[in-house]
Amino acid sequence: MNETSRASERLVHVPLQGRAYDILIGPGLIERAGGEITSRLKGRRAAIVTDENVAPLYLEALMDSLQTDGIEAVSLTLPTGEKTKSLEHLSTVCDMVLSARIERNDAVIALGGGVIGDLAGFAAGIVRRGVRFVQIPTSLLAQVDSSVGGKTGINTRHGKNLLGVFHQPDLVLADTAALDTLSEREFRAGYAEVAKYGLIDQPDFFEWLEKNWKAVFSGEPERIEAIARSCQSKSDVVVEDERETGRRALLNLGHTFGHALEAAVEYDGKRLVHGEGVAIGMVLAYQFSARMNLASPDDASRVEAHLKAVGLPTRISDIPGELPPTQRLLDAIAQDKKVKSGKLTFILTHGIGQSFVADDVPSSEVLSFLDEKRSR
Amino acid sequence: MNETSRASERLVHVPLQGRAYDILIGPGLIERAGGEITSRLKGRRAAIVTDENVAPLYLEALMDSLQTDGIEAVSLTLPTGEKTKSLEHLSTVCDMVLSARIERNDAVIALGGGVIGDLAGFAAGIVRRGVRFVQIPTSLLAQVDSSVGGKTGINTRHGKNLLGVFHQPDLVLADTAALDTLSEREFRAGYAEVAKYGLIDQPDFFEWLEKNWKAVFSGEPERIEAIARSCQSKSDVVVEDERETGRRALLNLGHTFGHALEAAVEYDGKRLVHGEGVAIGMVLAYQFSARMNLASPDDASRVEAHLKAVGLPTRISDIPGELPPTQRLLDAIAQDKKVKSGKLTFILTHGIGQSFVADDVPSSEVLSFLDEKRSR
Ligand SMILES: NC(=O)c1ccc[n+]([C@@H]2O[C@H](COP(=O)([O-])OP(=O)(O)OC[C@H]3O[C@@H](n4cnc5c(N)ncnc54)[C@H](O)[C@@H]3O)[C@@H](O)[C@H]2O)c1
Ligand SMILES: NC(=O)c1ccc[n+]([C@@H]2O[C@H](COP(=O)([O-])OP(=O)(O)OC[C@H]3O[C@@H](n4cnc5c(N)ncnc54)[C@H](O)[C@@H]3O)[C@@H](O)[C@H]2O)c1
Ligand SMILES: [Zn+2]
Ligand SMILES: [Zn+2]
Repeated sequence: MNETSRASERLVHVPLQGRAYDILIGPGLIERAGGEITSRLKGRRAAIVTDENVAPLYLEALMDSLQTDGIEAVSLTLPTGEKTKSLEHLSTVCDMVLSARIERNDAVIALGGGVIGDLAGFAAGIVRRGVRFVQIPTSLLAQVDSSVGGKTGINTRHGKNLLGVFHQPDLVLADTAALDTLSEREFRAGYAEVAKYGLIDQPDFFEWLEKNWKAVFSGEPERIEAIARSCQSKSDVVVEDERETGRRALLNLGHTFGHALEAAVEYDGKRLVHGEGVAIGMVLAYQFSARMNLASPDDASRVEAHLKAVGLPTRISDIPGELPPTQRLLDAIAQDKKVKSGKLTFILTHGIGQSFVADDVPSSEVLSFLDEKRSR
Repeated sequence: MNETSRASERLVHVPLQGRAYDILIGPGLIERAGGEITSRLKGRRAAIVTDENVAPLYLEALMDSLQTDGIEAVSLTLPTGEKTKSLEHLSTVCDMVLSARIERNDAVIALGGGVIGDLAGFAAGIVRRGVRFVQIPTSLLAQVDSSVGGKTGINTRHGKNLLGVFHQPDLVLADTAALDTLSEREFRAGYAEVAKYGLIDQPDFFEWLEKNWKAVFSGEPERIEAIARSCQSKSDVVVEDERETGRRALLNLGHTFGHALEAAVEYDGKRLVHGEGVAIGMVLAYQFSARMNLASPDDASRVEAHLKAVGLPTRISDIPGELPPTQRLLDAIAQDKKVKSGKLTFILTHGIGQSFVADDVPSSEVLSFLDEKRSR
């Protein structure tokens, strides 16, 4: 790396044994992607996967950069939205990658949000039992969360992310300037995951966010700081527990409730996007913890107040339209993958930055809690 | 393991770090599967995948044994044949496994030959990003080769095994009595892979096979010996190089040619099954090595003589029906996954038990060699 001159750029190194990789964070990385890739990867072919919103904004710049550095690239532009994470689209992506004769040292490149990253990463993980994978996340959520850590996947009629593989990227290029075209709503949704890192185990970071969130939103240097800190947090957890046998489960704070809500609206992004589900889910996790006398109700209020100030939904009733009966929400939770031998596993908390894995949560408590919360 | 009383049973331990597993080899293991599984795995649910030939023979015995030991099992019976290794069937298997609410500690069980093992193993590798996997191989090929080592996969229109994951089994139960119902032809096909281990790096084993092959075929104790020795060979290679970055490629002896021939008959098992392709492929690899002055033509003749004695095809012209032009065979080889940056990679040999990876084989040589061999 001879990037020290780029004062505003940050580097987070993910020291996974045998598969260590870099996350670069800063403006203008898409235009420089070719050089960053050729200095790290051997192959000179690439298959880019992107979506219909992102392609008109950044695909040409990426293709130009790859071409300049001698990488032969093809691209596939898919529809936007969570429904793109399907077996049909996975099949299309794999077919395109094979047609492009991508070999083990060549790369699949995901240019887009978490949907594209999860789908393209899954394809990269199974084509020839694994080819190189470069993440160019363009949504805040993807930059701070989905592009780091190697989880890939698609949804099935049984639920979200139920098929997938662990497949680490070889490089992550988080171009923070690309976030300028992201809608306010999607930026906020990604911000929920940023706040999550504070709520898991970094009370000081949560406090910093309470003070600096406006600068993060408006694109001042605090934005890069918040993204780098988030990536570092995620990297720390992933390196400690790559396959989620223990501590990594903490990253699911807010996600068990969140996924149930996403399922309840049938992944209709008009009603609820992932990060919004997580925001409501985190508030619910804090409130449920308070109800179980594990945390103070003040902490739950503080979490809700901050997420609300930012403009995120914090209550089930913030979701527009009708929701299915509470029992069906619970069924979605039970079918969620974070279930061990029939017992409900939740991430609960003792306070801001004091989350923990609770293995043995009685589903009856969850049912009555949810019933109550829905009517607020 | 308190199986020491079972004199005829063999155990091969595969000491992969963190995911070590046992291969049990002997008669009657299907009837004892439940006990062997519960003593090693935590989950108490299982989803069995099998095929239409194997189900009527062994499914009931397996289900009974699982039930006796308290494992709740469901099963899915698929059509037989290589075409079953498709994305459509993968989707069906995943759906069935998810419907059965198989969690991370529960198992997918493959009961059948390599087709079922590869397909079910792939599903086990991607459902919830990996659930437990038990191989109960019922063909000789599956017992000595495909059930060991963790490679899983399906075919696409671009070629064989182009989509898949590495997903190690947690237990392999090779019931040698099940081979009694295997057709002579399929037994012979599996035998090609047994001979392969000798040809790769164990000249003494190849010699042993030349002397003892009839006892291996007729089911005397030599059969268990040959299977155990094969599993041990494969295990040694896999432990050294799980992800096939080096030495593991030797297991592809005969396979580059073999896969091209399988593709040429469009995976029509009536014309050519996998092991037959490998038999012809190994002879071709020895002959091509002789032609390149790497090995003696006598070794090529010795290999051909043994495989022919056993009743295996050894020449391209042994394949019934028309074959496509030689150039198309070569294209299939180039698209085969064992290709690095455009150069042809082959396993060649300096003699019996002296195989090596050749990275830089000129395709023009292969073309003229194949052209000549076809007309024999
Ligand atoms: N793999 C993981 O570890 C992990 C972690 C968290 C979330 N996820 C997954 O990520 C997905 C959500 O990710 P997401 O929120 O990025 O969704 P997304 O990919 O759907 O992106 C959100 C929207 O923003 C658009 N967009 C993206 N970048 C843009 C840009 N720079 N300018 C304009 N528009 C842009 C997209 O086209 C889309 O419409 C979910 O499927 C979730 O399951 C995965
Ligand atoms: N994963 C690996 O490492 C690996 C290695 C080698 C081969 N393979 C794959 O294995 C497949 C070939 O395996 P295969 O030869 O076992 O094919 P297969 O699964 O098609 O089995 C051959 C035939 O024998 C039948 N059969 C199986 N067991 C029987 C029994 N006990 N009694 C009666 N009939 C029985 C099957 O129904 C089938 O018709 C190929 O797809 C190949 O790519 C994988
Ligand atoms: Zn999330
Ligand atoms: Zn084989």
